[in-house]
Parts: sequence; structure tokens; C-alpha cells
Amino acid sequence: MNTFGRFFRVTTFGESHGPAIGAVVDGCPSGVPLSVADIQPLLDRRKPGGPLSSPRAEADEVEILSGVFEGLTTGTPIALLIRNRDVRSGDYDALRDIFRPGHADYSYLMKYGRRDHRGGGRSSGRETAARVAAGAVAMAVLGGAGISIAGSVREVHGVSDPERFEDEVRAAQARGDSVGGIAEVRAAGVPAGLGSPVFDKLDAAIAGAMMGIGAVKGVEIGEGFGAARLSGSENNDEMDAAGFLSNHAGGILGGISTGQEIVVRLAVKPTPSIALPQRTVDVRGEEREISIGGRHDPCIAFRLVPVAEAMLALVLVDALLEGRAYGRSVAGQMGR
Amino acid sequence: MNTFGRFFRVTTFGESHGPAIGAVVDGCPSGVPLSVADIQPLLDRRKPGGPLSSPRAEADEVEILSGVFEGLTTGTPIALLIRNRDVRSGDYDALRDIFRPGHADYSYLMKYGRRDHRGGGRSSGRETAARVAAGAVAMAVLGGAGISIAGSVREVHGVSDPERFEDEVRAAQARGDSVGGIAEVRAAGVPAGLGSPVFDKLDAAIAGAMMGIGAVKGVEIGEGFGAARLSGSENNDEMDAAGFLSNHAGGILGGISTGQEIVVRLAVKPTPSIALPQRTVDVRGEEREISIGGRHDPCIAFRLVPVAEAMLALVLVDALLEGRAYGRSVAGQMGR
Amino acid sequence: MNTFGRFFRVTTFGESHGPAIGAVVDGCPSGVPLSVADIQPLLDRRKPGGPLSSPRAEADEVEILSGVFEGLTTGTPIALLIRNRDVRSGDYDALRDIFRPGHADYSYLMKYGRRDHRGGGRSSGRETAARVAAGAVAMAVLGGAGISIAGSVREVHGVSDPERFEDEVRAAQARGDSVGGIAEVRAAGVPAGLGSPVFDKLDAAIAGAMMGIGAVKGVEIGEGFGAARLSGSENNDEMDAAGFLSNHAGGILGGISTGQEIVVRLAVKPTPSIALPQRTVDVRGEEREISIGGRHDPCIAFRLVPVAEAMLALVLVDALLEGRAYGRSVAGQMGR
Amino acid sequence: MNTFGRFFRVTTFGESHGPAIGAVVDGCPSGVPLSVADIQPLLDRRKPGGPLSSPRAEADEVEILSGVFEGLTTGTPIALLIRNRDVRSGDYDALRDIFRPGHADYSYLMKYGRRDHRGGGRSSGRETAARVAAGAVAMAVLGGAGISIAGSVREVHGVSDPERFEDEVRAAQARGDSVGGIAEVRAAGVPAGLGSPVFDKLDAAIAGAMMGIGAVKGVEIGEGFGAARLSGSENNDEMDAAGFLSNHAGGILGGISTGQEIVVRLAVKPTPSIALPQRTVDVRGEEREISIGGRHDPCIAFRLVPVAEAMLALVLVDALLEGRAYGRSVAGQMGR
Repeated sequence: MNTFGRFFRVTTFGESHGPAIGAVVDGCPSGVPLSVADIQPLLDRRKPGGPLSSPRAEADEVEILSGVFEGLTTGTPIALLIRNRDVRSGDYDALRDIFRPGHADYSYLMKYGRRDHRGGGRSSGRETAARVAAGAVAMAVLGGAGISIAGSVREVHGVSDPERFEDEVRAAQARGDSVGGIAEVRAAGVPAGLGSPVFDKLDAAIAGAMMGIGAVKGVEIGEGFGAARLSGSENNDEMDAAGFLSNHAGGILGGISTGQEIVVRLAVKPTPSIALPQRTVDVRGEEREISIGGRHDPCIAFRLVPVAEAMLALVLVDALLEGRAYGRSVAGQMGR
Repeated sequence: MNTFGRFFRVTTFGESHGPAIGAVVDGCPSGVPLSVADIQPLLDRRKPGGPLSSPRAEADEVEILSGVFEGLTTGTPIALLIRNRDVRSGDYDALRDIFRPGHADYSYLMKYGRRDHRGGGRSSGRETAARVAAGAVAMAVLGGAGISIAGSVREVHGVSDPERFEDEVRAAQARGDSVGGIAEVRAAGVPAGLGSPVFDKLDAAIAGAMMGIGAVKGVEIGEGFGAARLSGSENNDEMDAAGFLSNHAGGILGGISTGQEIVVRLAVKPTPSIALPQRTVDVRGEEREISIGGRHDPCIAFRLVPVAEAMLALVLVDALLEGRAYGRSVAGQMGR
Repeated sequence: MNTFGRFFRVTTFGESHGPAIGAVVDGCPSGVPLSVADIQPLLDRRKPGGPLSSPRAEADEVEILSGVFEGLTTGTPIALLIRNRDVRSGDYDALRDIFRPGHADYSYLMKYGRRDHRGGGRSSGRETAARVAAGAVAMAVLGGAGISIAGSVREVHGVSDPERFEDEVRAAQARGDSVGGIAEVRAAGVPAGLGSPVFDKLDAAIAGAMMGIGAVKGVEIGEGFGAARLSGSENNDEMDAAGFLSNHAGGILGGISTGQEIVVRLAVKPTPSIALPQRTVDVRGEEREISIGGRHDPCIAFRLVPVAEAMLALVLVDALLEGRAYGRSVAGQMGR
Repeated sequence: MNTFGRFFRVTTFGESHGPAIGAVVDGCPSGVPLSVADIQPLLDRRKPGGPLSSPRAEADEVEILSGVFEGLTTGTPIALLIRNRDVRSGDYDALRDIFRPGHADYSYLMKYGRRDHRGGGRSSGRETAARVAAGAVAMAVLGGAGISIAGSVREVHGVSDPERFEDEVRAAQARGDSVGGIAEVRAAGVPAGLGSPVFDKLDAAIAGAMMGIGAVKGVEIGEGFGAARLSGSENNDEMDAAGFLSNHAGGILGGISTGQEIVVRLAVKPTPSIALPQRTVDVRGEEREISIGGRHDPCIAFRLVPVAEAMLALVLVDALLEGRAYGRSVAGQMGR
């Protein structure tokens, strides 16, 4: 299932070392100003090559194949294409039959019976470039509705002081190891009344979207796991005539937005590709030792931030269109 | 959106104080033995009336309206009906126009422009009885495939010693307050190869399912948020000829099951209905003080466990059927 | 797949001789006036017992289980329940292992491996009562948008003069036979701009909806099969300043409504249950002769009309909500 | 909604005069042999340039961007790209603001508020090349299951003798006019038991798929509209120990395949683009006369055949995978 969303449907395709990756956005309203200039900057934030990331050199240049005419969307599908350029598939020949610990090699083989082993194929983080491109289209729609999204890394290897993040990453890299982290994304300007109970609650959609990013092992909204340690009198958000007095809920109650800021945090596991030797087996079940060189991020949390922003944008634009279908704006005016 | 699943689709309906709640299960394979006796015990575990739960007295007797013939499913929709009995709607008259803190009152009104205020209407935890009934059908299918699910409360108000759970709940209740907790659900016997990347990853589906349960504010798989504090060499699960040497991944890699136990934890917020006075507003925006009596669980984590088990069952049966569609069993035989 | 629609989703359940049939309507906007009085009259039009139909005596009384509060929809699922009353399952004992010609007995067994043989089980026309009930909800929404639907029988056994319809049916009945016919449904007041290319075109959705009614073997829009015999200059609908000059298109161009009347015709096959002896086999493959007595309509086209109206209503309300999601009303104002 | 199918999902994109058209196939099982050589011949059958078709010269060369590794599908999305080459957008400048009779110009503008007018943009028949490419992938799967599909034109402008088809088309072209026709597609080797009642019946899915092809105004299965003129004793397909004695049903009963040949006929309207002068209006509502030159097929039924074959393939592969999910093959063995 490579399609996300019900109203603003994004289908991604492509493997790490195939000819191209891309996305088709179906359900974007017509009349939205859109050009490559709206998408490329977000792709540039995600792309490899930064000081804390993999040295794979991909320009990640996006081409809009359809759905835009004279600078505005037409309401028809928007196909986005990114050619793979810096493909050194030979780097992966030695790994063809070996299950890399912490990767999807084993589980993909169990599911599909075969796999494109080059760079992880479809399970590669490279697929997320297509999500970011689609997310940029979503953000163009959200921007018109006054909704903005921003993310950041909040913790690296248990350290929450941003000034020490780079040290933690460098130290891990020097050991031939990697480290995990916690990323946060927030959405401001979200009107009250978005989200669709009971199974497509806004928080449920966000949790599914975030946990669907490779390397994410936990998701929390607002107070999150902290709420499990509080009492009701501490955790409830009281109201007065001016509105809510706190935001433990993270902007969502009963699966529907409250008009407050939406706050989401993600647990990002340490990059599984490490130079340190690890025990594993090959496809014949024979024991092997593996040490993974090549081009890998020692802490994937940083490059994951724009992906998480894109996914939050996709969830919110879907909820926004859902709300329009059922007349939320009218309903919203009837309430407070 | 009141339907869950793509292959094993469950649609729930009903309000807390309406005539009935229920579910329609569409996509259950034919030939599965099923009777009320398979469903009622799970409903009984969830139903109100236990020592740590609300005294609302609901028999929660389920009726199978369709889809079963001579003790076996027929492949057609299975409709499950539970009549509401102990409905004291008058209890809620005073709350008709007031937004209860921590509840969905305000957000539902913002979305729909009007709402059934009695007992929270559709946003009530009562809706989860329908999920449990549907989950019981899922478990009947999973049982035939050797998959079992079990859950438990792991922490109450920050306390992880089960012997102290009741004390924490009683103390909160005595204060007119409530407490949060952490629940855990596990699935054993899950074959390797279940799950559908990239957007319906098994962990993504689980996260969405769990966060879609009211009161859940966080979800983690395997090491979860703990993984964010580890290094790759600590978090990776190595393998030898006998299989995986650890299960930090919680049974899922790349969104696909590994054949290990699936481990999920949920952060459950404290019940928002508390007797302690709280500040809020009514639908006219006027400030009010509210103290919620009535029949409420001081710690909802306990009654949430069977709901979380049901949701995990729904996710797994969906993945199981998806795997059959695409020949996973064949593929699985080709792998290890 | 027992769910119809993407925005206004209807899930039906129930077998001909089970405890009940019903439907869950998910995605109905809030604030629509709705009561049993809006649904029952449409059910009464479909129900058995008329002069040209089966004598099975079903009251078809519908109960609204959820989704309506104080006379208005709440935006939550509307569950509709119809108990089966006049169930004489024993009538079908002799048919338990025999494949009735023209019925779904053989194909259901091939698909599901087993089946509820009583009255055709799920494949019975009785299921359509649930569709009519759901269609009545759709019509309540459409009525608010100025859209109305009406159907009629246009031809019976090749005869197009309505005064001769009853004669044709009586004659067939007297022979122990049945006859086919052509039904027509029309929708007036449909605004231009409804429908979603390319795969959910309005006409595609209508065709799927109509062909999904048992006994329907053909569907045509506007000029239909007649258009295949015309030239472009005859079939094109020209325009002048006052609008279209003809309606060969049947109100749909490129899968999108034009604002003209929508015209749909259905080929309805003769009722397969006939008293005349027919050759068939049983589940063991042994040859049998069968003569079907019992309670059957000699021409099903009449009772199919309200079902076709209901399905057209479901398609149109779905398109209406889709249009709202993507701002059709705004777009519509920009055009003519 | 530009996605077709639930199990084998095809999303198409692209405009007639944009940079490219294409499709993403999601849900193709892994291990299917696939290369450009399986797709290109079907595209060549559809492409413009034949004696009875438009002279637009498109090579329609397809590129496989993903989902195939070492000659076999991997189970991941298969993206197919066809660049537009012979784009003479200037041909359409004069038509920018005029509604061509019989085309989607007016309805698209009503829906979207704006449109890419060049060659009909998204509503162009050019989009069907993407369907044919995706259909070729479906046929590769079906071929492995012993299912084959073939189509033909059965009638042109009311003439059913194939030897006179070309005369009819030439005569229409000489008049500056166009003609309609009837196409037929058949599927052989379809096992009994495919199809999913009640709303995704095999015939309902086929009808929706066929009516979703531009220019199709009617669909019938088996005896089709002819069945409306028969009696039950004529139309029922009797059985003996060797199987069915006739195939009036067209291979489908109760929405499920019977194992007989599936027979579908389509009413194709005359090409709306004609040289003869026609009355119409422009976007300002001013009356205009229009005569459409350019590159158009005088009878679109011929080029529509491979598109109809592709759509039938998409429906059948979807039903085949659905059957696998729910164990049809097992059930099938239990029946006859």
C-alpha cells in the first residue's frame, strides 16, 4: 500500500538505486499556485550531503509532469519525478545475500520472496524524498488556509541540549556507531474541528503517518507518555473565556483539533548501518559477520525532520478537505 | 470515518445513550467457527462494573445478526448488535451546554456544529464495546493461524509494581481525581512477512489503531522511546543460525513482521471526568466551574486493555489477509 | 465488499432468512432533518406484496439505531435495522443442495465454499431493502441541495406501452414463466460540475452502482446504445446562449455533470425463479430437474425501480460531498 | 479519483499536451516476469497513426521506473512513464475559450474553475495510454493464471458486417462527420468464484470500468439489453453434469464468475470532434460556430478496444487477488 490519504492521496514509487523515485498527488484542489520553486527547497533540506549526514551526492531535482497549467494546479493528478543520479550499486554487491541487522532485508525477503538489495531498494530512506515533494504540495494548500508546520530535533542520544547534538553524533561516528534521537513537529494555525472520528481521528492519522517513517519507533501527542504519569487534574486543559489555559492535549481532543498548536514527538532509532562488526546470517542461514561502510547518516533524526513535517502536512491537508466535504466551516461558525 | 481496515473491514456505530451500538465486520473469510460464545467473554472483560471501573451496569449482550450460518461464517458481513440498557440520560442534562475539560465536547461541536451530549455521545468509550466485539471475530480468524494476543497494564501513575496499582487508583478516587497509566499488548505466533510498506507498514497500522483509542496519547513499538537513547550497536537485533538474538525492534522491521513477538505500549491519559472542580466555559463562552460526578473509571488503562487487544487483532488479521492476497505464504517458503 | 461510496459510505448486511438486514451510513453531514418517516415510505414502495410482486409479507419496519439526535443527524454513523419477520426457511429445504438456474447458488458456493441457501441468503433481492433505507438518507441530503430522483419501468418483455405491462406479467405468470424489462431513473436539479475523473466519473459510478443491483445486465446513459448508431453531428449536444440544445449525453460529459437531467436506463433480466421445469445439477454434480414454486416476482423490474433510485441517490450524494471537498461550488461560480 | 482497483491499484496521471503521462501500479505480486517488451506491443495497438485513426505521431515508448528488478516484479510499485512527443499545443489556441460540443470542456470548467485546454488536457483519450500500459502488467499476472482477454469491434454506425466497417468510417470522414460503434471484450479461462458481492460485484466492477472510458455510453454483460426482452425460461442458463448449457449470463451470476467466458459489450459514441460546423458558446456565454479540424479518429471504437481489454484485465486481476485473500482457491476446490 503505497498510497497515503483519502482526500489528498499521495502515491510514491521508486527504489534507492532504480532509475527514479517520485510521487503522484491526487486530490489537490484546483487553482493552487505551484511550481518547482515551491518543492525544491524542501527537498534540499532533506537531501544527503549535510555535515551530519550521508555523503551520497543527489541533486534531488524534481520535475512536475502533470496537474499544473500556467502556474496553477488544475485539480488533476500532480506527478513529481526525481531521477536517481549518484547510484553506486556495486557498493552493495557484497550485501546481496546478507541480512543487515536493524534493516528490512530479512522481513522484505519473507514478505516478497525476493528483493532489490541495492541500498535497501524500496525500504531505503531515499523513498522519503518523494514524500517530501508531495508534502510541499500539501504545504502550498495549507499555507493558503493559514496553517504552517515546523519541526526540530529535540534530543540526541538522550541529550537535550542542542549545543551538544553535534558532539554526540561525531562521537558515535568516530566509534563506528550511530545514535538515536527525538524529533518534534508542530502545526500552527490549525482551525478547531479538523479530524474524523472514530478510526481516522486526527491523532490516529498522525500516529500512523509518523510510525510509517522508517526508523520511527514511537509517537506521542501533546503530553504523550508523560500524561500516563499525571492525574486528571494535572493533565486536563481548563478553559476560560479567552480559550484553553494549557495544551497538554497537544491540540487534539476526541480525535478532532481544538484550534491549539498541534504537537507531535517521534522516537527515532539509531541508524542501523554501522561500521562496528555485527553478527548476522545470510539467505542460506549461514552465520556471518558484517561491518557496514558506505554512505550513512550517523543520526537519522536530523534528515527525518523534513519528512515528518511533510507527513504532518499530508495528514492536515487531508483533514482540511474532509472538513470541507462535510461543511465543517459552516459548523465551525455555529460553535465558538 | 468509522471503518477500520482494508481487507477485514470493521464499521462501528452507536452513541453512549442511543438505542444501541454495534459493528459490521466485512471481509471475514468463510468457514470460520463463530458464535456468541466467542464474543461475549471478551465483551465481559471490557464491560463496566469491575472494582476499578465505572458502576454503569451494562450487560453488553451481543447479538449476531448476519454472516453466520450453522455455526460457521459465510464470508458475508457479520453484523453485531449490543443494545444499550442502563441509560440514565438525565444525568447529563446539566452538562448539555458545558465543555468538560479533557473531553471531546468542544472539538465535536466545532466539527459538527451540534452533538449528542448524553454521555459523550459518539465520543464515549462505550463505542469501544463494538470494537471489542469485532476484535473477537478477528481473534477467531487469527487463532486458526496460530496467532494469539494478550495485554496488561504495565504502569499506573508512574508506578510499575502491579501490587501497588489498586492503591494508586483508590487514592486518586478518594481525592476526586484520576490517574493515567501505560498498557502493553503483545502478539505471539505472528509469521514473518506480514505488513505492507510503505504507508500501511505493520507498525504504522498499529500506531494508528492504538492512537485511535480515546485517551491514548502515545504509542511505541519494541524499544520505543528508549531506542532514541541507544546507539545502533545496542539497538540492532543481531542474528545467528537460530534466529534473532534480541527483540529491540518489537517484532517489526521495515514495517514487516520478523516472526518475533510484537510488542506495543500505549500511554493512557488520566480519565478526564473528575470530581475536583475545574474551570471551563459553556457554549455561549461564559465561564463556569464544573465538578463531574456520575459513573467514571478513575484509571481507564485497565478497561482499555481488551480494546487495545481488539485493535491489535484487527490490524493483524488485515495484514494476514493482505499477505494471502499477494502470496506471502509462498514467498515465505522461499525465504528462511 | 459490502460498502458503497467514498464520502457517503453505506455498508449493508443481512441475509434473506437471517434475523435482520440493515445498513450503516457513514459520512452523512450533520444537521440534516431525519426520522423514520423519511425512510419508511421508500421502503414501502420496494416491499413485497404488490399486485405484480411476491406475496412474502414483510412489514419492513426500519429502526434508526444511531446518528440522529433530536430529529437531526449528528454527523456520526446512522445505523438502520430491519428485522426479518415472514421467514419460512423450510420452503428452501428442498433446494439446499441444488443450483437454481440463473441464480447465484453455484457461483457463491464456488467463491465461499459454503452458503446460506435459505432464500438466496446474501444474494437475495431482500438485501436491497437496506439500500433503499440508506438511499432515503441520501435523498434527504440531496433534497436540501435541490436534487430530486424519479424512476419508472419503460419496457416489459419488449413492450413499451405501459398499459400493456400488467398483461405481459400476468401472461408470463400464467405460463409459470417470468419476463424481463427496462427501467429508467432520472435525476433533476443536479448542478454542473459533479463527478470525479478519471476512474470515478459520474457515469462510471452510476454504471457500477446499477450493474451491482441483482438482475441488471446492462446500463446506458443518455442516448446509450443508440449513440453507437449515430453520427457525431447527430449525437453532439450543441449549445446556445440559453444552454444546451439537446441532451443526448444524458447530463454527463467527461464524467462530470453538465447541469442537465441525468438519464439512466437498466436492462433487467427475467426473474430466474420460475415454475417451469428446468435442468440443473446438485452440489454432487448429479443432474436434477427443478421447478421453483414459492413467492417470486414474475417481473422484477417494478420492484427494482426504488432500488435504482436509491443507488442513483447514493452516487449523487457522494459526488456532491466530493465537490464540496474540492470547492466545486466556488469553481462553479467562476464558470457559466 | 485517478486510482482504479483495491488490490491491484492503478493510478494514472498526465495531460494530453503536458510533459508526460504515466501510471503507478501498486499491488502487483512479486515474482512476475515483466519488461518493456510485455507492455510496448499493447501500447502500439492503441497508439494513433493507423488507417482509421488520428495521424498524431506518438511513439508512446514506455519506461519502467521502479518495481522490477532483474526481470521480475518485486511487489513494490511499478511506475510507468510515457513522454509526450508530438505536442502541437498551438493547434488548440483558437479553442482555448470555446466549449467543443460533446467534449468535457464545459463540465471540466464547471468542476475545476479552470482547465488545461490543450487537446482536452486530462480528459483527452491520450490518458488511456497509461491505462493500457498498466493493463499490460495486469495481463502478465492474469496470463500466469491462465486467463486471456481479447476484444473486437462488433458494429460501426449500426452496421455489423466487419467488411463494411472501413466504408462506414471513410464515408463519415468524407462528410466531415464521425460515427459510433459497439466494441466487445471477452475473457477466457476465468475460474469460477471471482467477484465480491454486493457492491463490488464482478459485473458492477466491469460496468464501472468500462463506463469510465471516455466515449462509452452503455455497457452490457452477456445477453445484456436483449435479456430485457426474454422470458426466464429463455434467459436462464441450465446445467447438466458437463456444466452450463448456455451463457446468457455472460459468465457472471450474483456478481461472481461462473467459470464460463465473460462477455462484455460497450456502446461507443461517435467522436465528438467533427469538421462539420456546430453551434456552441464560449466561456463568456457568447454564441460561436465551431468546426474542428486537427487530428481525430472518425470512429473511436477501434482504438478503444485495447483500452477496454486493459480495463477488463484490471478488474479481473483485482478479483483474482481478492479471491486469494479470502481463500477462494481453497473454497473453489470444495465446490464443483
